[in-house]
Amino acid sequence: MRAIVVNEWGGPENLVEREIDRPEPGLGEVLVRVHAAGVNPVDWKTRDSGALIAWGEHPIVGWDVSGTVEAVGPGVTVHAPGDEVYGMPNFPRQAGGYAQYVTAPARHFAAKPATLDHVQAAALPLAALTAWQALVDTAGVSAGQRVLVHAAAGGVGHLAVQIAKARGAYVIGTASEGKHALLRELGADEVIDYRTTDFEDAVSDVDIVIDAVGGEYTQRSLKVLKTGGHLVTLPGPDSLPADPQGVHASWVLVEPDLAGLREIAALVEQGLLKPLVDTVLPLEQAARAHEIGEQGRTTGKIVLTVA
Amino acid sequence: MRAIVVNEWGGPENLVEREIDRPEPGLGEVLVRVHAAGVNPVDWKTRDSGALIAWGEHPIVGWDVSGTVEAVGPGVTVHAPGDEVYGMPNFPRQAGGYAQYVTAPARHFAAKPATLDHVQAAALPLAALTAWQALVDTAGVSAGQRVLVHAAAGGVGHLAVQIAKARGAYVIGTASEGKHALLRELGADEVIDYRTTDFEDAVSDVDIVIDAVGGEYTQRSLKVLKTGGHLVTLPGPDSLPADPQGVHASWVLVEPDLAGLREIAALVEQGLLKPLVDTVLPLEQAARAHEIGEQGRTTGKIVLTVA
Repeated sequence: MRAIVVNEWGGPENLVEREIDRPEPGLGEVLVRVHAAGVNPVDWKTRDSGALIAWGEHPIVGWDVSGTVEAVGPGVTVHAPGDEVYGMPNFPRQAGGYAQYVTAPARHFAAKPATLDHVQAAALPLAALTAWQALVDTAGVSAGQRVLVHAAAGGVGHLAVQIAKARGAYVIGTASEGKHALLRELGADEVIDYRTTDFEDAVSDVDIVIDAVGGEYTQRSLKVLKTGGHLVTLPGPDSLPADPQGVHASWVLVEPDLAGLREIAALVEQGLLKPLVDTVLPLEQAARAHEIGEQGRTTGKIVLTVA
Repeated sequence: MRAIVVNEWGGPENLVEREIDRPEPGLGEVLVRVHAAGVNPVDWKTRDSGALIAWGEHPIVGWDVSGTVEAVGPGVTVHAPGDEVYGMPNFPRQAGGYAQYVTAPARHFAAKPATLDHVQAAALPLAALTAWQALVDTAGVSAGQRVLVHAAAGGVGHLAVQIAKARGAYVIGTASEGKHALLRELGADEVIDYRTTDFEDAVSDVDIVIDAVGGEYTQRSLKVLKTGGHLVTLPGPDSLPADPQGVHASWVLVEPDLAGLREIAALVEQGLLKPLVDTVLPLEQAARAHEIGEQGRTTGKIVLTVA
């Protein structure tokens, strides 16, 4: 099969096309024919700095996949050949998405939302599961709560805004002014232009902060939280306070989760959640996709199509 | 830490106590202090014949654990140190249960049912998830359906009877006569003594068969199913028909699943599901536990306690 392999950890030029063996589904695994693979910041961070956990002979990044089940390994009953599925195979282990086929434990995939095509569906798993696990599984968002989302028009942010809204929260988003109309359309109740306003002067009494920025944003976010509130940061644990003084502060590492993927698909099918796709490129242009992604100027996701 | 290691694949005498390094929780993992470890047939099958998937330096069996979270790795938010949890760590990969500590991805554990002690909770995960994934995730059991459970007083069977009953099904169980009173108490509507009656003469129009026996039972079970019904066999795929002729027939390989563990805990706390514990032994007597288990005369589970 064709795959984009990381030849050596480093810049985008290390993403090279190779013909490698098609994987076989093992015990409890599915083999998925990839139609589209979403691109995430963790892809280029991994490509640049190496894998978090030891990988095999052909390192392949890409944890966002939408495709068709080609075959199932022994013991798999939740999916069958021909099923259209989307998922986050193998995260945080060896990925496999930038290829014609990928294998993963069956519960890393769920039925693709019926109302989306493969390109749209491939934009969802990692970012939407991150937003879901931050808002629902970690912070326990409930109706009437005040939720502040940083980088609210970003990859995770635009989904966090919609999920919080679908759960009945009052949603405040930070973004540059050019994104404010979009955020209103996604359901944000208030928008703050971080270029002209310090958010901590404009908002207070927040129950949950979803922080996709990190660094000093994490520190500053502590000031706007109610006692007992939750700060969930996404980039990494480095900026978390050692003693958060009356609030909860945590870093969420997203996990594959069939139940979460099903909840997300249900929201999509109810019209409450839609992914934004910025750029679509063929698999062969994975290096170009990373270059675009690393410039940080996209609104919504970059997705690779796999022929 | 103390652990029972499989010194060499083979008989129970190969289970030996060793002092080995305590594992460290990696990215997204929890470290659990094991208070009790359930014993399952897959434990002695693995000990006897070797692992399904390559294992590390110190092979440790045991996938049923109840204990306390000692520490969490980076990115874990679903559990915190001090939480009492139960789960099925790492199945079907390197187990780790027969030891003082085990690490696994956080979602392999859920909050322990509040109404159970650690010994009872350690009897549940693998058998109850198997029953749940067979009945609910694979066969989609619903109220009013007719469910036939083979070996209904066995490790998976007694839980399948209760779960099917809790979902509103009409439940028929096969077991020797001495177990009939127990099955009635667990909620079975009909019981069949397999020693005196061929079940296919006594029952028909079944929607779902849960077959924990395999072999000729799998073949004979096809005759009692309605068109469109589900046969779910548990021992392995060998006895599955190539062409099941109008019914669904599948082998379920149980998978770690936070959502399933939570559903099971909820049934327990509602008083609708209780595990049967036959024998409790200290970890040091793991070999004795396997000898007892392999004789196949227990009613309910064998559980090891870990000091």
